Amino acid sequence: MGKEIGVTVKKSEDFSEWYTQTVIKSELADYAPVKGLIVLRPDGYSIWESLKSSLDKKFADTGHRNGFLPTLIPESLLTKEKDHFAGFNPEVFWVTKSGDGELGDRLALRPTSETLAYTLFAKWIRSWRDLPLKINFWNTALRAEIKATKPFLRTSEFLWQEGHTVHVNSEEAEKEVTDILELYKKTVEEELAIPVITGKKSEKEKFVGAVYTLTMESLMPDGKALQMGTSHFLGQNFSKPFELKYADKENVESYAWQTSWGVSWRLIGGMIMVHGDDRGLVLPPRVAPIQVIIIPIYYSDEDKEKIEKISKEIEEKLKDAKIRVQVDNREQLTPGFKFNEWEMKGIPLRIEIGPKDLEKNQVTFARRHNRQKDDQAITGLVERVVSELDKIHNDMFSDAKKILEDRTSEVNTYDEFKTELEKGRLIKAPICDNPKCEEEIKEETSADVRVITNDAKDTSSKCIKCSDQSTIRPLFARGY
Amino acid sequence: MGKEIGVTVKKSEDFSEWYTQTVIKSELADYAPVKGLIVLRPDGYSIWESLKSSLDKKFADTGHRNGFLPTLIPESLLTKEKDHFAGFNPEVFWVTKSGDGELGDRLALRPTSETLAYTLFAKWIRSWRDLPLKINFWNTALRAEIKATKPFLRTSEFLWQEGHTVHVNSEEAEKEVTDILELYKKTVEEELAIPVITGKKSEKEKFVGAVYTLTMESLMPDGKALQMGTSHFLGQNFSKPFELKYADKENVESYAWQTSWGVSWRLIGGMIMVHGDDRGLVLPPRVAPIQVIIIPIYYSDEDKEKIEKISKEIEEKLKDAKIRVQVDNREQLTPGFKFNEWEMKGIPLRIEIGPKDLEKNQVTFARRHNRQKDDQAITGLVERVVSELDKIHNDMFSDAKKILEDRTSEVNTYDEFKTELEKGRLIKAPICDNPKCEEEIKEETSADVRVITNDAKDTSSKCIKCSDQSTIRPLFARGY
Repeated sequence: MGKEIGVTVKKSEDFSEWYTQTVIKSELADYAPVKGLIVLRPDGYSIWESLKSSLDKKFADTGHRNGFLPTLIPESLLTKEKDHFAGFNPEVFWVTKSGDGELGDRLALRPTSETLAYTLFAKWIRSWRDLPLKINFWNTALRAEIKATKPFLRTSEFLWQEGHTVHVNSEEAEKEVTDILELYKKTVEEELAIPVITGKKSEKEKFVGAVYTLTMESLMPDGKALQMGTSHFLGQNFSKPFELKYADKENVESYAWQTSWGVSWRLIGGMIMVHGDDRGLVLPPRVAPIQVIIIPIYYSDEDKEKIEKISKEIEEKLKDAKIRVQVDNREQLTPGFKFNEWEMKGIPLRIEIGPKDLEKNQVTFARRHNRQKDDQAITGLVERVVSELDKIHNDMFSDAKKILEDRTSEVNTYDEFKTELEKGRLIKAPICDNPKCEEEIKEETSADVRVITNDAKDTSSKCIKCSDQSTIRPLFARGY
Repeated sequence: MGKEIGVTVKKSEDFSEWYTQTVIKSELADYAPVKGLIVLRPDGYSIWESLKSSLDKKFADTGHRNGFLPTLIPESLLTKEKDHFAGFNPEVFWVTKSGDGELGDRLALRPTSETLAYTLFAKWIRSWRDLPLKINFWNTALRAEIKATKPFLRTSEFLWQEGHTVHVNSEEAEKEVTDILELYKKTVEEELAIPVITGKKSEKEKFVGAVYTLTMESLMPDGKALQMGTSHFLGQNFSKPFELKYADKENVESYAWQTSWGVSWRLIGGMIMVHGDDRGLVLPPRVAPIQVIIIPIYYSDEDKEKIEKISKEIEEKLKDAKIRVQVDNREQLTPGFKFNEWEMKGIPLRIEIGPKDLEKNQVTFARRHNRQKDDQAITGLVERVVSELDKIHNDMFSDAKKILEDRTSEVNTYDEFKTELEKGRLIKAPICDNPKCEEEIKEETSADVRVITNDAKDTSSKCIKCSDQSTIRPLFARGY
């Protein structure tokens, strides 16, 4: 693989350009002909399918079922919850024509489905017997982006799931909100090897229309925080305007309690940023479309035959063990070219098989994440690959966790805050309960409250902004 | 279940009203607030997921991979293949605004993705090494429907898959077109128990932009044919306007050869129509969200405890055998109410467990499709359920196949043709190769050529329209 085919900038030198080149050159995604939109190529979509299947199983195991909602929402519905509409209005795509005719009422492309889903739920729910209702939708959301596109991070249409649940009381709904965030955290840590910090969003940063929002956040190598999933307690904020009521056992009607929650392909963006390096992608083994790439190496026709035979045998054995494996037997390409290409594509484990290996009944293992190589006997190879992929996952997770911890700072003054922020840190800093302080910090530094962890209470410090007594010590950062 | 809750019209008396009531009351789908659009409730979506998973596995096994394309297509792309655009133009939804601003160029909501996909393929494909390219997209298509909505059959947005492949020569592409149709037929017959007839569409009825279209068709109980899936040989009709070229081993550039193919949730509409009866849905076991419903029957607290215990045990055993099973232990509802409700929902097998059954260590099996009941010992119950579900599938398929055969007529004159058509038949009739005859038959009778089977050649008869020598004997019917 020539230099120009690979990623041509260093991650540490031009992070933004490195990111874009990595996504496009590794063939995860490409730009669509419409500004702000991307397409997923098979490797990119395969990662989404892995995540989807892991989440979907967890949703089903906890009593959720999937449904389908159309893309088009009437304007009158979207505007029914006022704060919610005000929040989304600037980003809404509007359909005004079909064929050569004008539509009577214009239709919004779904920016999120609360208003549509709750109109239907109000029809479907009659009594306590119908609750809890726990439905999830795998679809896309469409929100017109004005800023420059970043694949997976900022696009005008994105793949996601949106869960919507309805409950008889607030306790059950709040438990759902917490359980889902835990389910998200487990998925991101166990599938993508990304450590996250969970907690609440501030009043200012919560979902428009929610009582409160739980979030999971991680820190990216450029020092910006990435919101990786949110779970909203909606209380009765939507059930009231949407007349979503249920009759209890005594036949008394009450407004129901609701939640909504979602993760998107942004998780893939986080995975690329956290694990990638100067050579390109580094894929966590559990979501890698190919987990093991086998490269036969030979210099004679006689060797070729033998080595291709053993490569094939190893491939078959690994396939039987449910490992996603491929032999790269493309001719006319050198082993070196292949090494570089598969490294750029982030394949977790490379197995090289050459004539000298064959003599010793062994192969060479080359790990993508730390580029370590060693010999492995052909006997016991399958078991070793299975355990090695787990080890790679664990190593990637601990490396990322160490970096997250090292880059989290605790400060007590606004000056320290600004200094740490310039270093690209996630910063714990005390603030008071006057929303103006949080607002002014954001205006002056572009950093906002990313997450208020469960242990964030702090009434013994001074607000970094106004020096009044603090109430909490949340985590701040600039965000994506 | 009260009469008013169930389906209130007979299938044979008001087919259209029966269909709608069955879909809505069995909770497969509901109307969305926008005219022409529906939503899928969990049972309806679950059937789609079963079909999807069966197709997806077959696509993967034959070397196809999934990708993602955005919903929005620029007008300039959509108009690039002229016939194709002319065909879709009247149905296109147009986005003209985002937020409060006007868009510079209006954007189409995807009616189908050929033009978008091939713009990208032209970027991605350089040489023979990149071929064949075989990509599938699970998404929705949006086409503004002017006629009245019929859930699953006629809606302005529908779930489907669209496959798009690119090949080095026409032989390989034509083999793909045939293989895919066979894969579709297998899926529809093996999952939905619907017999289909396969063959070619006429020039007049083919996909706009294709060289030819293969189709599978089935006959519905109202005498109308339903097109259940199509596979198009595109030749070089798109590769030329889209500049989709590849370099061969000698580095000579040629236009590539292409196919596209799709099935939609229309398959679910076919399943409802073919198998349903006056009581509502009859679900083929392999796609039923619940395959077995267990109804405990008791009249004393002592019996209740015993019978709920054994019901639970049977449920667990069936779950272990991967059967989708549920116990209906809702209190305050009579067994009779439950029987009616689950019959309306089409659950293939009901297991009743009452005090007398328990004394004899047996249960009662009640089949939905033929309403036959018999006793079954608790010993050996799991194995019996497994084989019974297969038997139900096979019985449903042969019943449907017999009906299809009985309702296929062969005629030689236009008068016979019209008589048979009024009986709701699929009609084999000879025509000549003058396209005017086909057109005039359609104008005069509303029946069109549904499918030209492989054995349709007939040069020894007279065209039913003009009495000239015939060329083929295709199947005609009125269509959905």
